[in-house]
Amino acid sequence: MRTYYCGELRKEHIGETVTLYGWVDRRRDHGGVIFIDLRDSTSIVQVVSDPQRTPNSYDLANSLRNEYVVEITGRVTQRPEESLNPRIPTGEIEIYADTIKLLNSVAKQLPFQVSTADADPVREELRLKYRYLDLRRDRMANNLQLRHQVVKAMRRYLEDVEGFLEVETPILTRSTPEGARDYLVPSRVNPSEWFALPQSPQLFKQLLMVSGLDRYYQIARCFRDEDLRADRQPEFTQLDMEMSFMSQEEIIELNEKLVCHIFKTVKGIELQRPFPRLVYPEAMERYGSDKPDTRYDLELVDVSDVVKDCGFKVFREAVTNGGIVKILPIPNGNDSISNVRIKPGGDLFKEATDAGAKGLAYIRVRDDGEIDTIGAIKDNLTPEQKQEILRRTDAKPGHLLLFAAADTATVNKTLDRLRQVIAREFGLIDPEKINLLWITDFPMFEWNAQENRLEALHHPFTAPHPDDLSDLKSARAQAYDLVFNGFEVGGGSLRIYQREIQEQVFEAIGLSPEEADNKFGFLLEAFEYGTPPHGGIAYGLDRLVMLLAKEESIRDVIAFPKTQQARCLLTDAPSLVDTKQLKELHVASTYKPKS
Amino acid sequence: MRTYYCGELRKEHIGETVTLYGWVDRRRDHGGVIFIDLRDSTSIVQVVSDPQRTPNSYDLANSLRNEYVVEITGRVTQRPEESLNPRIPTGEIEIYADTIKLLNSVAKQLPFQVSTADADPVREELRLKYRYLDLRRDRMANNLQLRHQVVKAMRRYLEDVEGFLEVETPILTRSTPEGARDYLVPSRVNPSEWFALPQSPQLFKQLLMVSGLDRYYQIARCFRDEDLRADRQPEFTQLDMEMSFMSQEEIIELNEKLVCHIFKTVKGIELQRPFPRLVYPEAMERYGSDKPDTRYDLELVDVSDVVKDCGFKVFREAVTNGGIVKILPIPNGNDSISNVRIKPGGDLFKEATDAGAKGLAYIRVRDDGEIDTIGAIKDNLTPEQKQEILRRTDAKPGHLLLFAAADTATVNKTLDRLRQVIAREFGLIDPEKINLLWITDFPMFEWNAQENRLEALHHPFTAPHPDDLSDLKSARAQAYDLVFNGFEVGGGSLRIYQREIQEQVFEAIGLSPEEADNKFGFLLEAFEYGTPPHGGIAYGLDRLVMLLAKEESIRDVIAFPKTQQARCLLTDAPSLVDTKQLKELHVASTYKPKS
Repeated sequence: MRTYYCGELRKEHIGETVTLYGWVDRRRDHGGVIFIDLRDSTSIVQVVSDPQRTPNSYDLANSLRNEYVVEITGRVTQRPEESLNPRIPTGEIEIYADTIKLLNSVAKQLPFQVSTADADPVREELRLKYRYLDLRRDRMANNLQLRHQVVKAMRRYLEDVEGFLEVETPILTRSTPEGARDYLVPSRVNPSEWFALPQSPQLFKQLLMVSGLDRYYQIARCFRDEDLRADRQPEFTQLDMEMSFMSQEEIIELNEKLVCHIFKTVKGIELQRPFPRLVYPEAMERYGSDKPDTRYDLELVDVSDVVKDCGFKVFREAVTNGGIVKILPIPNGNDSISNVRIKPGGDLFKEATDAGAKGLAYIRVRDDGEIDTIGAIKDNLTPEQKQEILRRTDAKPGHLLLFAAADTATVNKTLDRLRQVIAREFGLIDPEKINLLWITDFPMFEWNAQENRLEALHHPFTAPHPDDLSDLKSARAQAYDLVFNGFEVGGGSLRIYQREIQEQVFEAIGLSPEEADNKFGFLLEAFEYGTPPHGGIAYGLDRLVMLLAKEESIRDVIAFPKTQQARCLLTDAPSLVDTKQLKELHVASTYKPKS
Repeated sequence: MRTYYCGELRKEHIGETVTLYGWVDRRRDHGGVIFIDLRDSTSIVQVVSDPQRTPNSYDLANSLRNEYVVEITGRVTQRPEESLNPRIPTGEIEIYADTIKLLNSVAKQLPFQVSTADADPVREELRLKYRYLDLRRDRMANNLQLRHQVVKAMRRYLEDVEGFLEVETPILTRSTPEGARDYLVPSRVNPSEWFALPQSPQLFKQLLMVSGLDRYYQIARCFRDEDLRADRQPEFTQLDMEMSFMSQEEIIELNEKLVCHIFKTVKGIELQRPFPRLVYPEAMERYGSDKPDTRYDLELVDVSDVVKDCGFKVFREAVTNGGIVKILPIPNGNDSISNVRIKPGGDLFKEATDAGAKGLAYIRVRDDGEIDTIGAIKDNLTPEQKQEILRRTDAKPGHLLLFAAADTATVNKTLDRLRQVIAREFGLIDPEKINLLWITDFPMFEWNAQENRLEALHHPFTAPHPDDLSDLKSARAQAYDLVFNGFEVGGGSLRIYQREIQEQVFEAIGLSPEEADNKFGFLLEAFEYGTPPHGGIAYGLDRLVMLLAKEESIRDVIAFPKTQQARCLLTDAPSLVDTKQLKELHVASTYKPKS
């Protein structure tokens, strides 16, 4: 029976005989004395065996190899002065191994070393295939530990301080695709019908408010069948919350306290409240993004009014066509950014065109305040226009001004992207800085040019601002997103709780009354049985933990993630299944591989 | 802004002006004075309005109907002596409503009353369709609250006392049907391949042990596509645990402490430890069940050896064919149970035949110790056999002895069923009694006559008893189930952690090496990279909460359950979906409705 975890042992245990379990992290032979770093879930302790002092354990100790699993009984002993190791918590002691029992060995060549893999980068495919080895590494074990601590802090704050009730909502639900693609599950009992996995518990949590639950939370698994990126997974986890009878201000305040509690508990960091806020139009104006990273400046400057009549056709026509012209001013940009990079073929040019821009105009501000650019711009701006551009961008000699001229969305997207690239390149990001920021006053809808209709910017259950009901299509939403260092980590809103308004919103996004009734009839009906005013928020847990762990991919904070091809390399899922299984479900694959 | 919840108000708040939110539980008009029972998630408080004292609120108060949603601001006032209500916590005070704001009304006839539905039974279909009204009822709100408290107690004990780490395992996993049917999910990105929803996180939690995590838990959603009963749902919740380096005894001890903590925290009940235990063979012998309800006696008695050569063919041949003859002795059974009930067409006869028995023999013990039964039995038992039967069953005058004679499984199933029916009918069950019982020493395998092969009694990852390795097919498993008042609420085992033994078990259940490798190759391989000895357990959360809530269906402790036809009556899932969705997934329904 285990008497201690490895990491618990200290000087005060000297003299005790202890039994430990764990893995051989490393084994070294120093002139006939075997040193074993024994690792368990807590830490590492040094175990010693030699033919003189521990004859019973020596032969086995000698036969051990990395990652063997052992039970060791031995005496806790003071380390000699010269081998004290202040870098590990157990560095003052070592264990003389009276007996070692081999519990399991390693039969194969390890695909990568566990104990040195933190230093030695390992291909991600190999890490995912042998995830059980990958998770033995400090970095990954710490990430899972951190994730647990974050969830625990959330739960305890919501339960103990705010009186929230945890409720589980179904995973087998109704398909109501609004936004992302659903994962579907054929029903055997109800042939030809399908369940969908929830994209979020949105409707159920609203129904819990209709049920009078007052304050609900859940650490909820959600599913979206989308094409994946570094911070997307087919299944992901949300802290999902909903509250009745609270104003937007009250919800924001409660959530700031929650976030402060998480940072305090998990990181020991005291955040200042209230968090800064930006209204959506201002965020878009200044940063080109509704999730700006405000750890650095590099703010955008709109010069549409300055250049709207200028001689340079690209600028003029952008404005004439209803678009805008904005500048990203880069202090000291002249020295670091060559023309090669901002002209066709260059990396920054490519960033811009990837974002949808047709090109990337620029002005370099020279020592004498002169501007340096292509002739078509230089020759087609009046001195007043040039002066106004320099004034607005607060441009000093050495400044590089990058221009985007197109429709508003493209301009913002382009300069937002360039802003982030430049900030990284110029080392403007303080990795220790924690910038939390609310974005509010989102518009209810945005135009989906592809489908030629309005769509809900958040989701169609978001309540419009009460002052804007007379013109719903351009109304502001009572929505609030929480941005953490340029990532949206939380998003919420007050919800519609009146049938008429919900119907108007459905109509605005082009849902016919029949479709609305077919998809959301149960919700509309619930509104007629005494629905309280309510609102909520959901946090992307994976993303939040990723940021707290200073990782760059959410795969590094999920125990068993899928690849970007939505596969599990460990179990090799998805897979072909027995025809019998499909037959029972009354379904078949219609896939014809291209030959 | 809310200043209090309804249920918080007491005498000490008298004089305060408060703002409350909630639902009109009832509204009464007593000679021009309106009384409103205002209900929120905490409780009820009485609100008063009349034209004299609260002229501003009277008209609105008068217009309120049940389940309207209101904001009420008013003064907390001492109730007059004659209207004190000691049955509710707020019964000493009432609120004079200065203002009432109608937040939402009820536009339709309520399908059932919320405030009286506890007394008034409502059809379950109606409750499930209007679940948001059903959940407003005390009974259901209390059940969800209890469920939350149980989960919270589990988490806190495991985290704070035992150092468990909560880890989320995937919902989109690989199909490895062993036992129940999988729910399948077509992959869009990997056409013709399918994910399965997990029947349990079994393999992932074992892999977490291989990952060195030491102690894992999760409140895990699990899925089985089975035909449903009162205590089965397509998706259900487990407290799932796994531990490394612990013996069966250590795991049992830890779990007893956990269960004691749950009962203490949630119910204020101190359970005695250690819990009683029965080995599987004894449980089957005495109760015919591996999950016996030991709150009452009614133990079975085996008389196979007594009747094996007797003249009554049914008994003799049962034994000759390898089966058994057992008796359920029912004290005072003669008076209450007529022959009509135990002969063909009778209710107890039907219980027996439903369980697989061909019939139901009986002996009635009369006042003078004489036995009364059909001639074929009476005439074919020797006086010694009769005496031995009476001796073994400790039969007194008035006893009814019910016999089952068949193969062992059928005999046990039959008498187990009758035992439960009789116990209920005779009022032998003390509803306040809490009998927790471990069953251990299960066999590894049982014979599946349909598939003509052995199958794992628990699952094929269960470790055989180390003393029984020489004859695996009849080996005992290192498995332990926790039984609570006749329900299996937890089941666990030590797991296999060596490749050779796992391969032998796969072979024993008829899995070829190729199949084993195809389905479980990743696990077999993991065993070769330093897998620790480990074991675990899983509790059926729904069932446990059902028992603690003294409910008879797990549907009553799940917020949004499915019906026995695996449908959600609230959202009407599953449903038909857009052809476009199926096309993108490369699947089609093959269902042809019978015309």
